Amino acid sequence: MAKDFPTREENYSQWYNDLVIKAGLAENSAVRGCMVIKPYGFAIWEKMQAALDKMFKETGHQNAYFPIFIPKSFFSKEASHVEGFAKECAVVTHYRLKNSPDGKGIVVDETAKLEEELIVRPTSETIIWDSYRNWIQSYRDLPILINQWANVVRWEMRTRLFLRTAEFLWQEGHTAHATQKEAIEEAERMLDIYAYFVENWMALPVIKGIKTPNERFAGALETYCIEALMQDGKALQAGTSHFLGQNFAKAFDVKFATKEGTMEYVWATSWGVSTRLMGALVMAHSDDKGLVLPPMLAPIQVVIIPIYKTTEQLSIVTETALVIKNALENKGITVKYDDDDNQKPGRKFNEYEFKGIPVRIAIGPRDIEQGTLEVARRDTLEKYTYHQIDIENKIENLLKQIQENIYKKALAYREEQTRSADTWEEFKSLLNEKGGFIYAHWDGTSETEEKIKEETKATIRCIPIGNKLEEGKCILTGKPSKQRVIFAKAY
Amino acid sequence: MAKDFPTREENYSQWYNDLVIKAGLAENSAVRGCMVIKPYGFAIWEKMQAALDKMFKETGHQNAYFPIFIPKSFFSKEASHVEGFAKECAVVTHYRLKNSPDGKGIVVDETAKLEEELIVRPTSETIIWDSYRNWIQSYRDLPILINQWANVVRWEMRTRLFLRTAEFLWQEGHTAHATQKEAIEEAERMLDIYAYFVENWMALPVIKGIKTPNERFAGALETYCIEALMQDGKALQAGTSHFLGQNFAKAFDVKFATKEGTMEYVWATSWGVSTRLMGALVMAHSDDKGLVLPPMLAPIQVVIIPIYKTTEQLSIVTETALVIKNALENKGITVKYDDDDNQKPGRKFNEYEFKGIPVRIAIGPRDIEQGTLEVARRDTLEKYTYHQIDIENKIENLLKQIQENIYKKALAYREEQTRSADTWEEFKSLLNEKGGFIYAHWDGTSETEEKIKEETKATIRCIPIGNKLEEGKCILTGKPSKQRVIFAKAY
Repeated sequence: MAKDFPTREENYSQWYNDLVIKAGLAENSAVRGCMVIKPYGFAIWEKMQAALDKMFKETGHQNAYFPIFIPKSFFSKEASHVEGFAKECAVVTHYRLKNSPDGKGIVVDETAKLEEELIVRPTSETIIWDSYRNWIQSYRDLPILINQWANVVRWEMRTRLFLRTAEFLWQEGHTAHATQKEAIEEAERMLDIYAYFVENWMALPVIKGIKTPNERFAGALETYCIEALMQDGKALQAGTSHFLGQNFAKAFDVKFATKEGTMEYVWATSWGVSTRLMGALVMAHSDDKGLVLPPMLAPIQVVIIPIYKTTEQLSIVTETALVIKNALENKGITVKYDDDDNQKPGRKFNEYEFKGIPVRIAIGPRDIEQGTLEVARRDTLEKYTYHQIDIENKIENLLKQIQENIYKKALAYREEQTRSADTWEEFKSLLNEKGGFIYAHWDGTSETEEKIKEETKATIRCIPIGNKLEEGKCILTGKPSKQRVIFAKAY
Repeated sequence: MAKDFPTREENYSQWYNDLVIKAGLAENSAVRGCMVIKPYGFAIWEKMQAALDKMFKETGHQNAYFPIFIPKSFFSKEASHVEGFAKECAVVTHYRLKNSPDGKGIVVDETAKLEEELIVRPTSETIIWDSYRNWIQSYRDLPILINQWANVVRWEMRTRLFLRTAEFLWQEGHTAHATQKEAIEEAERMLDIYAYFVENWMALPVIKGIKTPNERFAGALETYCIEALMQDGKALQAGTSHFLGQNFAKAFDVKFATKEGTMEYVWATSWGVSTRLMGALVMAHSDDKGLVLPPMLAPIQVVIIPIYKTTEQLSIVTETALVIKNALENKGITVKYDDDDNQKPGRKFNEYEFKGIPVRIAIGPRDIEQGTLEVARRDTLEKYTYHQIDIENKIENLLKQIQENIYKKALAYREEQTRSADTWEEFKSLLNEKGGFIYAHWDGTSETEEKIKEETKATIRCIPIGNKLEEGKCILTGKPSKQRVIFAKAY
């Protein structure tokens, strides 16, 4: 199954693409840049959604749904927002088709032209703040803590499954607050939730930081982000949370009466993660044998495979297998028993290894005699013989160990790939020879940041939260700097 | 709160619209025909989704996600499908905007015109069957049982919140089978699931039937439906399930190798329910005092309101209220304790009545002394005094009773509003004076059906499944007929 695709070493980019397709996570569709998320991929995304949704609700947020279309003029209302978003987008200009005069197929009905074009949402700040204007009169209406799960479209020229697609799925939180302080706290709280999710569910360590003005969300006063490192030494932004100040409130005239009776503009945040996380999950943990899924997000956590020659043996093995399956399921573990007669065990082993099932159990007639079973873990590829006694607790523990081990491995890799550079030469050679995160001094100007990007393709991923202050000199200009920031090439 | 809106008697249509908006379920957006689903409405929709999704998965279906855009040419591939769907739709023609030459706002960049226009999906058969072609080679790849939760767009000219909107949310199942028999069984199974859901969760009785060829889904060989009756005597189609034959397999060239080694076209079904069900829920059960929600779909099932004068009383009442809240929550009941100091109890009573909370509990100092509490049920507006002992079981039973009672009330109404007509005159007068479902003979032709629709606005809602055969004469033409079908005016 996994034969005809390259190793990470040979061609990381191709390895990723082939893995996503061959493992049945997603594929390209007939529409340029739009992907089909296949059932196995979608099952992982559903687990991500459920975990995040629960955390959003536990912190007081409610879900809602806003229109997919945004009137073109809305984008012009927030000056920097239009620069960032409205340009590369899907534009709806007509609302009817008609039969072609030549009788061949259908054509756009030119008489059905919209007075104002509609944009398929690339993000929903504008349409949401247009609604909030009617929802907010007084401080009693605040805060508004809303999230929506939705599809969005950004007309990307170069697309990659999950990482960069024209249409993608995401959640976008949009909150409204009476004070700046409360809004900043909200933006930081949501960043913490994202970091918690990515580290504990996806088993992927992240660095929390703030973006430089250059890399900020269009319309934000501050963009908080979490940055992760992939196995090719490139960084991936895994989630962002924005403090939007009063920009959207001013653009859409959303004011509230304070307790003191004055009228003030409302403070805003927005925050989102997307199906891009699926790409991060694959890139961070998988290996040359296929997917490696952290147990907490694996649609199937344990697969049980019977080993047998005769149907009599199968029936004996199946009896024990189903008892074990049941015991595991009572622990909340998701189990598949694969007694498909059309495939040999070896082929099944390969398939489930390729699909990243965290634990594989094999049971044969000799195991039945001896009260044992064979357990293989996907992350380390180690095999153990376990006694069947108390198997549900043993497997539960093993799944926890696997989850932790995947995290630790990713953390060790990141630490290994995190370096400091003190000179321009050192910076360039580290970047080209090793990649990874590079801590370096920067003079704080957008010009320098741009120049470094042009010359090396590296960007400032973030200024880490709680960063250590340290006197130094900018690697490019030599001007004084008070702290190191993190550079990397990025997805 | 509920003062400034008409009764059902005065103006049913306005009553519905005001109720949806004032109860915070949904509102119109700045985009023509597109609604905003507000948190309270969305919380009900989430409960519907969760219940349906569980049933889909229990019957072997998996979720996936397909692109929102469909190339225009795809619609021309299935002849009747294009007639039904591709005409009134949102057409994407360009992929970029640019700054207006006059410096005022942004305009469409005419150089960024798509070679082929993209349609925002009105339904996804075409894009999905284009994918299935690559997924299906042999009978081993079948059946494919896939569902997607998605937004779709149909450019409706006259829209109403939930019932008919340009964009709406729905689920669409798309399955592929090796045999006709299996596909028909699937279409029928899903109809049964819809009927079960609408009757048991929404407390709304439905009639299962098949559509006449005129009313079939564009591209289907058979459309199964469930039909419900609203309080104004109009019918509402609550869900449909389609047997698509081999139409889409032929249009998209999807063949499979049979066990015997021949190549055959694949058999298909599709089925869907949408946010329209939210409209049905409101229209079917609510009254002149506001929403009436069946407990199984109510985001808050029980509200507890403290009655007090002094803060000391409040603290005593709160102590008991929280014990009761906890006991109810341990039963899986959703409870809100509303000790908001800014509103008087009477106002709170009105608000929760208006919002359709099934059970309201009030506790005051005298209740504390006597070990009692006051319980009010929303459906009948009856009040009881309960002893606090074993309150969690009493309330659990009461919620069940309310669920059943709402169903029974709707069923009694439907039975009352179901009549037979034997002559054209009788038919017309029943329709105009009473509405409701009318069982009448029909000669089986599309011409007659059309004529009846033109003259009365009534359509054939369905031919009930398991319909009793009975000799008779068509109400319009007098031609012979073998069974009565159900006519009604419909949403």
